[in-house]
Amino acid sequence: MIRVSAFRWVPPFARGLARDLRVRWALEEAGFPYEERLIGPEDQGSETYRRLQPFGQVPAYEENGLVLFESGAIVLHVAERSAALMPSDPERRARVTAWMFAALNTMEPAIQQLAELDLFYAEEEWAKQRRPAAVERVEARLATLAGCLDGREHLAGAFTAADVLMTSVLRIVRHTDLVARVPVLEAYRLRCEARPAFQKALADQMAALSP
Amino acid sequence: MIRVSAFRWVPPFARGLARDLRVRWALEEAGFPYEERLIGPEDQGSETYRRLQPFGQVPAYEENGLVLFESGAIVLHVAERSAALMPSDPERRARVTAWMFAALNTMEPAIQQLAELDLFYAEEEWAKQRRPAAVERVEARLATLAGCLDGREHLAGAFTAADVLMTSVLRIVRHTDLVARVPVLEAYRLRCEARPAFQKALADQMAALSP
Repeated sequence: MIRVSAFRWVPPFARGLARDLRVRWALEEAGFPYEERLIGPEDQGSETYRRLQPFGQVPAYEENGLVLFESGAIVLHVAERSAALMPSDPERRARVTAWMFAALNTMEPAIQQLAELDLFYAEEEWAKQRRPAAVERVEARLATLAGCLDGREHLAGAFTAADVLMTSVLRIVRHTDLVARVPVLEAYRLRCEARPAFQKALADQMAALSP
Repeated sequence: MIRVSAFRWVPPFARGLARDLRVRWALEEAGFPYEERLIGPEDQGSETYRRLQPFGQVPAYEENGLVLFESGAIVLHVAERSAALMPSDPERRARVTAWMFAALNTMEPAIQQLAELDLFYAEEEWAKQRRPAAVERVEARLATLAGCLDGREHLAGAFTAADVLMTSVLRIVRHTDLVARVPVLEAYRLRCEARPAFQKALADQMAALSP
Protein backbone atom coordinates (compact mmCIF):
# COMPACT_ATOMS: atom_id res chain seq x y z
CA MET A 1 0.00 0.00 0.00
CA ILE A 2 1.12 3.52 -0.84
CA ARG A 3 0.61 6.47 1.50
CA VAL A 4 1.28 10.12 0.63
CA SER A 5 1.37 12.98 3.12
CA ALA A 6 -0.54 16.18 2.41
CA PHE A 7 -1.59 19.28 4.28
CA ARG A 8 -4.88 19.34 6.13
CA TRP A 9 -5.04 23.10 5.55
CA VAL A 10 -3.19 25.68 3.46
CA PRO A 11 -4.00 29.35 2.84
CA PRO A 12 -6.06 30.09 -0.30
CA PHE A 13 -3.08 31.32 -2.38
CA ALA A 14 -1.39 27.91 -1.94
CA ARG A 15 -4.37 25.71 -2.73
CA GLY A 16 -3.61 23.54 -5.72
CA LEU A 17 0.12 24.22 -5.45
CA ALA A 18 1.35 22.05 -2.55
CA ARG A 19 3.78 19.48 -3.78
CA ASP A 20 1.81 16.39 -2.88
CA LEU A 21 -0.18 17.27 -6.05
CA ARG A 22 2.78 16.22 -8.20
CA VAL A 23 2.88 12.82 -6.56
CA ARG A 24 -0.91 12.38 -6.60
CA TRP A 25 -0.90 13.21 -10.31
CA ALA A 26 1.87 10.70 -11.07
CA LEU A 27 0.06 8.00 -9.08
CA GLU A 28 -3.18 8.68 -10.95
CA GLU A 29 -1.41 8.47 -14.32
CA ALA A 30 0.17 5.18 -13.24
CA GLY A 31 -3.11 3.88 -11.85
CA PHE A 32 -1.56 3.11 -8.45
CA PRO A 33 -4.04 3.51 -5.58
CA TYR A 34 -2.86 5.37 -2.49
CA GLU A 35 -4.10 6.70 0.78
CA GLU A 36 -3.43 10.07 2.41
CA ARG A 37 -1.60 10.96 5.60
CA LEU A 38 -2.99 14.41 6.38
CA ILE A 39 -0.75 16.59 8.50
CA GLY A 40 -0.88 19.98 10.21
CA PRO A 41 1.74 22.43 11.49
CA GLU A 42 2.11 20.42 14.69
CA ASP A 43 3.23 17.40 12.65
CA GLN A 44 5.71 19.32 10.53
CA GLY A 45 8.04 19.79 13.49
CA SER A 46 7.40 16.43 15.14
CA GLU A 47 10.01 13.70 15.49
CA THR A 48 7.60 11.19 13.99
CA TYR A 49 7.00 13.16 10.83
CA ARG A 50 10.61 14.25 10.46
CA ARG A 51 11.56 10.59 10.29
CA LEU A 52 9.49 10.45 7.10
CA GLN A 53 10.39 13.90 5.76
CA PRO A 54 13.53 15.42 7.34
CA PHE A 55 12.60 19.00 6.34
CA GLY A 56 9.03 18.75 7.60
CA GLN A 57 7.61 19.43 4.13
CA VAL A 58 5.06 17.54 2.05
CA PRO A 59 4.98 15.04 0.50
CA ALA A 60 6.40 12.06 2.37
CA TYR A 61 5.84 8.74 0.62
CA GLU A 62 5.46 5.33 2.27
CA GLU A 63 5.28 2.06 0.36
CA ASN A 64 5.60 -1.23 2.23
CA GLY A 65 8.39 -0.04 4.49
CA LEU A 66 10.10 2.15 1.89
CA VAL A 67 10.06 5.78 3.00
CA LEU A 68 10.84 8.51 0.48
CA PHE A 69 10.80 12.28 0.45
CA GLU A 70 11.25 14.98 -2.25
CA SER A 71 8.46 15.11 -4.80
CA GLY A 72 10.98 14.80 -7.65
CA ALA A 73 12.42 11.56 -6.26
CA ILE A 74 8.96 10.17 -5.55
CA VAL A 75 7.66 10.97 -9.02
CA LEU A 76 10.79 9.34 -10.47
CA HIS A 77 10.26 6.26 -8.28
CA VAL A 78 6.64 5.95 -9.43
CA ALA A 79 7.60 6.64 -13.06
CA GLU A 80 10.21 3.87 -13.05
CA ARG A 81 7.35 1.48 -12.33
CA SER A 82 4.89 2.73 -14.93
CA ALA A 83 4.97 2.91 -18.73
CA ALA A 84 2.39 5.70 -18.42
CA LEU A 85 5.10 8.00 -17.10
CA MET A 86 8.39 6.75 -18.49
CA PRO A 87 9.44 5.08 -21.77
CA SER A 88 11.29 1.78 -21.56
CA ASP A 89 14.14 2.69 -23.92
CA PRO A 90 17.19 3.69 -21.78
CA GLU A 91 18.13 6.69 -23.91
CA ARG A 92 14.61 8.06 -23.87
CA ARG A 93 14.42 7.48 -20.10
CA ALA A 94 17.59 9.51 -19.67
CA ARG A 95 16.06 12.35 -21.70
CA VAL A 96 12.94 12.26 -19.52
CA THR A 97 15.02 12.54 -16.35
CA ALA A 98 16.93 15.45 -17.92
CA TRP A 99 13.64 17.31 -18.32
CA MET A 100 12.57 16.33 -14.80
CA PHE A 101 15.71 17.92 -13.38
CA ALA A 102 15.30 20.89 -15.72
CA ALA A 103 11.83 21.47 -14.28
CA LEU A 104 13.06 21.35 -10.69
CA ASN A 105 16.57 22.79 -10.88
CA THR A 106 16.46 25.25 -13.82
CA MET A 107 12.84 26.41 -14.10
CA GLU A 108 11.53 26.13 -10.54
CA PRO A 109 14.16 28.17 -8.65
CA ALA A 110 13.51 31.21 -10.87
CA ILE A 111 9.74 30.72 -10.79
CA GLN A 112 9.58 30.01 -7.07
CA GLN A 113 11.66 33.09 -6.30
CA LEU A 114 9.20 35.30 -8.18
CA ALA A 115 6.23 33.63 -6.50
CA GLU A 116 7.76 34.24 -3.07
CA LEU A 117 8.29 37.90 -3.87
CA ASP A 118 4.67 38.28 -4.90
CA LEU A 119 3.00 36.07 -2.31
CA PHE A 120 5.06 36.80 0.80
CA TYR A 121 6.86 40.11 0.33
CA ALA A 122 4.75 42.14 -2.12
CA GLU A 123 4.53 45.14 0.24
CA GLU A 124 8.24 45.27 1.03
CA GLU A 125 10.22 48.01 -0.68
CA TRP A 126 13.10 45.62 -1.43
CA ALA A 127 10.74 43.20 -3.16
CA LYS A 128 9.44 45.96 -5.41
CA GLN A 129 12.99 46.81 -6.43
CA ARG A 130 13.90 43.17 -6.91
CA ARG A 131 10.86 42.19 -8.94
CA PRO A 132 11.69 43.45 -12.47
CA ALA A 133 14.89 41.39 -12.72
CA ALA A 134 13.15 38.35 -11.22
CA VAL A 135 10.40 38.63 -13.85
CA GLU A 136 12.97 39.02 -16.62
CA ARG A 137 14.70 35.85 -15.52
CA VAL A 138 11.46 33.88 -15.51
CA GLU A 139 10.60 35.26 -18.95
CA ALA A 140 13.96 34.14 -20.30
CA ARG A 141 13.47 30.63 -18.94
CA LEU A 142 9.94 30.47 -20.30
CA ALA A 143 11.10 31.62 -23.73
CA THR A 144 13.68 28.83 -23.88
CA LEU A 145 11.15 26.27 -22.74
CA ALA A 146 8.69 27.50 -25.36
CA GLY A 147 11.35 27.06 -28.03
CA CYS A 148 11.81 23.44 -26.93
CA LEU A 149 8.06 22.75 -26.90
CA ASP A 150 7.25 24.50 -30.17
CA GLY A 151 5.61 21.97 -32.46
CA ARG A 152 5.62 19.28 -29.77
CA GLU A 153 2.85 18.02 -27.53
CA HIS A 154 5.11 17.10 -24.63
CA LEU A 155 8.70 17.47 -23.48
CA ALA A 156 9.96 14.04 -24.48
CA GLY A 157 7.71 12.26 -26.96
CA ALA A 158 4.57 10.98 -25.27
CA PHE A 159 3.36 12.39 -21.94
CA THR A 160 5.87 11.51 -19.19
CA ALA A 161 6.84 12.28 -15.62
CA ALA A 162 8.73 15.30 -16.97
CA ASP A 163 5.41 16.86 -18.00
CA VAL A 164 3.98 16.21 -14.52
CA LEU A 165 6.82 18.21 -12.98
CA MET A 166 7.06 20.93 -15.62
CA THR A 167 3.34 21.66 -15.63
CA SER A 168 3.35 21.75 -11.82
CA VAL A 169 6.20 24.26 -11.90
CA LEU A 170 4.45 26.48 -14.47
CA ARG A 171 1.39 26.56 -12.20
CA ILE A 172 3.40 28.28 -9.46
CA VAL A 173 3.13 31.63 -11.30
CA ARG A 174 -0.60 31.26 -11.97
CA HIS A 175 -1.08 34.61 -10.16
CA THR A 176 0.67 36.27 -13.14
CA ASP A 177 0.10 36.25 -16.90
CA LEU A 178 3.67 35.19 -17.63
CA VAL A 179 2.74 31.73 -18.92
CA ALA A 180 -0.46 32.95 -20.62
CA ARG A 181 1.58 35.45 -22.63
CA VAL A 182 3.51 32.57 -24.24
CA PRO A 183 0.93 30.73 -26.39
CA VAL A 184 3.01 27.56 -26.78
CA LEU A 185 3.37 27.25 -23.00
CA GLU A 186 -0.21 28.15 -22.22
CA ALA A 187 -1.44 25.49 -24.65
CA TYR A 188 0.98 22.97 -23.12
CA ARG A 189 -0.17 23.77 -19.58
CA LEU A 190 -3.84 23.52 -20.54
CA ARG A 191 -3.23 20.27 -22.45
CA CYS A 192 -1.51 18.66 -19.45
CA GLU A 193 -4.00 20.02 -16.91
CA ALA A 194 -6.89 18.65 -19.00
CA ARG A 195 -5.72 15.10 -18.35
CA PRO A 196 -8.19 13.15 -16.20
CA ALA A 197 -5.35 12.08 -13.88
CA PHE A 198 -4.51 15.72 -13.14
CA GLN A 199 -8.14 16.63 -12.58
CA LYS A 200 -8.60 13.70 -10.19
CA ALA A 201 -5.39 14.51 -8.30
CA LEU A 202 -6.34 18.18 -7.95
CA ALA A 203 -9.87 17.36 -6.81
CA ASP A 204 -8.53 14.96 -4.19
CA GLN A 205 -5.99 17.48 -2.93
CA MET A 206 -8.68 20.14 -2.61
CA ALA A 207 -11.11 17.71 -0.96
CA ALA A 208 -8.55 16.97 1.77
CA LEU A 209 -8.35 20.64 2.76
CA SER A 210 -10.41 22.04 5.60
CA PRO A 211 -12.12 25.32 4.67
CA MET B 1 33.31 7.99 -25.46
CA ILE B 2 31.96 10.55 -23.03
CA ARG B 3 32.24 14.30 -23.58
CA VAL B 4 31.33 16.98 -21.02
CA SER B 5 31.02 20.68 -21.74
CA ALA B 6 32.72 23.23 -19.51
CA PHE B 7 33.52 26.91 -19.59
CA ARG B 8 36.78 28.10 -21.09
CA TRP B 9 36.71 31.05 -18.71
CA VAL B 10 34.74 32.12 -15.64
CA PRO B 11 35.32 35.04 -13.26
CA PRO B 12 37.37 34.25 -10.14
CA PHE B 13 34.36 34.08 -7.78
CA ALA B 14 32.87 31.26 -9.87
CA ARG B 15 36.00 29.13 -10.24
CA GLY B 16 35.44 25.73 -8.72
CA LEU B 17 31.66 26.20 -8.71
CA ALA B 18 30.53 25.70 -12.32
CA ARG B 19 28.31 22.70 -12.58
CA ASP B 20 30.47 20.60 -14.86
CA LEU B 21 32.44 19.92 -11.65
CA ARG B 22 29.60 17.75 -10.36
CA VAL B 23 29.70 15.62 -13.48
CA ARG B 24 33.50 15.47 -13.60
CA TRP B 25 33.49 14.33 -9.96
CA ALA B 26 30.93 11.60 -10.59
CA LEU B 27 32.86 10.38 -13.64
CA GLU B 28 36.09 10.24 -11.62
CA GLU B 29 34.39 8.27 -8.83
CA ALA B 30 33.00 5.87 -11.42
CA GLY B 31 36.34 5.64 -13.22
CA PHE B 32 34.79 6.57 -16.59
CA PRO B 33 37.19 8.52 -18.84
CA TYR B 34 35.83 11.58 -20.61
CA GLU B 35 36.94 14.45 -22.76
CA GLU B 36 36.03 18.13 -22.50
CA ARG B 37 34.08 20.37 -24.86
CA LEU B 38 35.22 23.83 -23.79
CA ILE B 39 32.79 26.63 -24.57
CA GLY B 40 32.67 30.40 -24.37
CA PRO B 41 29.89 33.00 -24.31
CA GLU B 42 29.59 32.82 -28.10
CA ASP B 43 28.70 29.12 -27.85
CA GLN B 44 26.12 29.57 -25.09
CA GLY B 45 23.73 31.30 -27.44
CA SER B 46 24.56 29.26 -30.55
CA GLU B 47 22.13 26.91 -32.26
CA THR B 48 24.73 24.13 -32.17
CA TYR B 49 25.25 24.30 -28.42
CA ARG B 50 21.58 24.82 -27.64
CA ARG B 51 20.87 21.52 -29.33
CA LEU B 52 22.99 19.94 -26.60
CA GLN B 53 21.91 22.20 -23.74
CA PRO B 54 18.66 24.10 -24.42
CA PHE B 55 19.35 26.74 -21.75
CA GLY B 56 22.93 27.39 -22.89
CA GLN B 57 24.34 26.35 -19.52
CA VAL B 58 27.05 23.84 -18.64
CA PRO B 59 27.31 20.92 -18.53
CA ALA B 60 26.07 19.18 -21.63
CA TYR B 61 26.88 15.47 -21.78
CA GLU B 62 27.44 13.38 -24.89
CA GLU B 63 27.88 9.61 -24.86
CA ASN B 64 27.76 7.66 -28.13
CA GLY B 65 24.86 9.66 -29.54
CA LEU B 66 23.04 10.13 -26.24
CA VAL B 67 22.83 13.82 -25.39
CA LEU B 68 21.91 14.87 -21.85
CA PHE B 69 21.69 18.12 -19.95
CA GLU B 70 21.11 19.09 -16.28
CA SER B 71 23.93 18.11 -13.95
CA GLY B 72 21.49 16.24 -11.69
CA ALA B 73 20.26 14.05 -14.53
CA ILE B 74 23.77 13.43 -15.79
CA VAL B 75 25.08 12.47 -12.35
CA LEU B 76 22.10 10.13 -11.95
CA HIS B 77 22.78 8.61 -15.38
CA VAL B 78 26.43 7.99 -14.47
CA ALA B 79 25.50 6.71 -10.99
CA GLU B 80 23.09 4.16 -12.42
CA ARG B 81 26.07 2.64 -14.20
CA SER B 82 28.51 2.57 -11.26
CA ALA B 83 28.47 0.84 -7.88
CA ALA B 84 30.87 3.58 -6.71
CA LEU B 85 27.98 6.06 -6.77
CA MET B 86 24.79 4.06 -6.26
CA PRO B 87 23.92 0.93 -4.24
CA SER B 88 22.29 -1.95 -6.10
CA ASP B 89 19.42 -2.53 -3.65
CA PRO B 90 16.30 -0.80 -5.08
CA GLU B 91 15.18 0.67 -1.73
CA ARG B 92 18.61 2.11 -1.03
CA ARG B 93 18.76 3.47 -4.58
CA ALA B 94 15.47 5.23 -4.02
CA ARG B 95 16.84 6.81 -0.82
CA VAL B 96 19.92 8.02 -2.69
CA THR B 97 17.76 9.68 -5.33
CA ALA B 98 15.70 11.29 -2.55
CA TRP B 99 18.87 12.92 -1.23
CA MET B 100 19.94 13.90 -4.75
CA PHE B 101 16.68 15.77 -5.25
CA ALA B 102 16.93 17.21 -1.72
CA ALA B 103 20.32 18.67 -2.62
CA LEU B 104 19.04 20.26 -5.83
CA ASN B 105 15.45 21.18 -5.00
CA THR B 106 15.43 21.85 -1.24
CA MET B 107 18.98 22.96 -0.35
CA GLU B 108 20.25 24.57 -3.54
CA PRO B 109 17.46 27.10 -4.21
CA ALA B 110 17.94 28.67 -0.76
CA ILE B 111 21.73 28.52 -1.01
CA GLN B 112 21.86 29.79 -4.58
CA GLN B 113 19.58 32.69 -3.75
CA LEU B 114 21.93 33.83 -0.98
CA ALA B 115 24.97 33.42 -3.22
CA GLU B 116 23.35 35.55 -5.91
CA LEU B 117 22.58 38.30 -3.41
CA ASP B 118 26.20 38.35 -2.27
CA LEU B 119 27.96 37.82 -5.58
CA PHE B 120 25.81 39.88 -7.95
CA TYR B 121 23.80 42.39 -5.93
CA ALA B 122 25.81 43.07 -2.75
CA GLU B 123 25.79 46.84 -3.29
CA GLU B 124 22.06 47.11 -3.98
CA GLU B 125 19.93 48.48 -1.19
CA TRP B 126 17.25 45.87 -1.76
CA ALA B 127 19.79 43.06 -1.43
CA LYS B 128 20.94 44.40 1.93
CA GLN B 129 17.36 44.40 3.17
CA ARG B 130 16.68 40.96 1.73
CA ARG B 131 19.82 39.29 3.06
CA PRO B 132 18.99 38.57 6.74
CA ALA B 133 15.93 36.46 5.89
CA ALA B 134 17.84 34.70 3.09
CA VAL B 135 20.60 33.81 5.58
CA GLU B 136 18.06 32.59 8.11
CA ARG B 137 16.53 30.29 5.55
CA VAL B 138 19.89 28.80 4.62
CA GLU B 139 20.73 28.33 8.30
CA ALA B 140 17.47 26.46 8.87
CA ARG B 141 18.15 24.15 5.93
CA LEU B 142 21.71 23.56 7.09
CA ALA B 143 20.54 22.76 10.63
CA THR B 144 18.15 20.11 9.33
CA LEU B 145 20.82 18.64 7.11
CA ALA B 146 23.26 18.56 10.04
CA GLY B 147 20.69 16.66 12.09
CA CYS B 148 20.44 14.05 9.33
CA LEU B 149 24.22 13.73 9.02
CA ASP B 150 24.97 13.65 12.75
CA GLY B 151 26.81 10.43 13.50
CA ARG B 152 26.95 9.46 9.84
CA GLU B 153 29.73 9.68 7.31
CA HIS B 154 27.48 10.17 4.30
CA LEU B 155 23.86 10.83 3.40
CA ALA B 156 22.85 7.27 2.56
CA GLY B 157 25.26 4.66 3.86
CA ALA B 158 28.46 4.59 1.81
CA PHE B 159 29.50 7.53 -0.35
CA THR B 160 27.01 7.99 -3.22
CA ALA B 161 25.93 10.37 -5.96
CA ALA B 162 23.87 12.18 -3.32
CA ASP B 163 27.09 13.25 -1.59
CA VAL B 164 28.50 14.51 -4.90
CA LEU B 165 25.53 16.82 -5.29
CA MET B 166 25.13 17.84 -1.64
CA THR B 167 28.81 18.72 -1.22
CA SER B 168 28.71 20.68 -4.47
CA VAL B 169 25.70 22.62 -3.21
CA LEU B 170 27.34 23.39 0.16
CA ARG B 171 30.37 24.79 -1.71
CA ILE B 172 28.19 27.51 -3.26
CA VAL B 173 28.29 29.51 0.00
CA ARG B 174 32.05 29.10 0.47
CA HIS B 175 32.25 32.92 0.57
CA THR B 176 30.45 32.78 3.96
CA ASP B 177 31.10 30.91 7.22
CA LEU B 178 27.62 29.39 7.25
CA VAL B 179 28.80 25.83 6.68
CA ALA B 180 31.93 26.22 8.80
CA ARG B 181 29.76 27.25 11.76
CA VAL B 182 28.06 23.83 11.70
CA PRO B 183 30.80 21.35 12.68
CA VAL B 184 28.93 18.28 11.41
CA LEU B 185 28.54 19.87 7.97
CA GLU B 186 32.04 21.27 7.80
CA ALA B 187 33.48 17.84 8.62
CA TYR B 188 31.21 16.27 6.00
CA ARG B 189 32.22 18.80 3.33
CA LEU B 190 35.93 18.34 4.08
CA ARG B 191 35.55 14.55 4.12
CA CYS B 192 33.92 14.54 0.70
CA GLU B 193 36.26 17.14 -0.78
CA ALA B 194 39.27 15.11 0.39
CA ARG B 195 38.33 12.29 -1.96
CA PRO B 196 40.89 11.83 -4.75
CA ALA B 197 38.08 11.87 -7.33
CA PHE B 198 36.98 15.33 -6.19
CA GLN B 199 40.53 16.65 -6.16
CA LYS B 200 41.15 15.33 -9.66
CA ALA B 201 37.87 16.76 -10.96
CA LEU B 202 38.56 20.17 -9.42
CA ALA B 203 42.12 20.26 -10.75
CA ASP B 204 40.89 19.39 -14.24
CA GLN B 205 38.16 22.04 -14.12
CA MET B 206 40.67 24.68 -13.05
CA ALA B 207 43.23 23.55 -15.63
CA ALA B 208 40.68 24.09 -18.40
CA LEU B 209 40.22 27.76 -17.47
CA SER B 210 42.14 30.53 -19.18
CA PRO B 211 43.63 33.02 -16.71
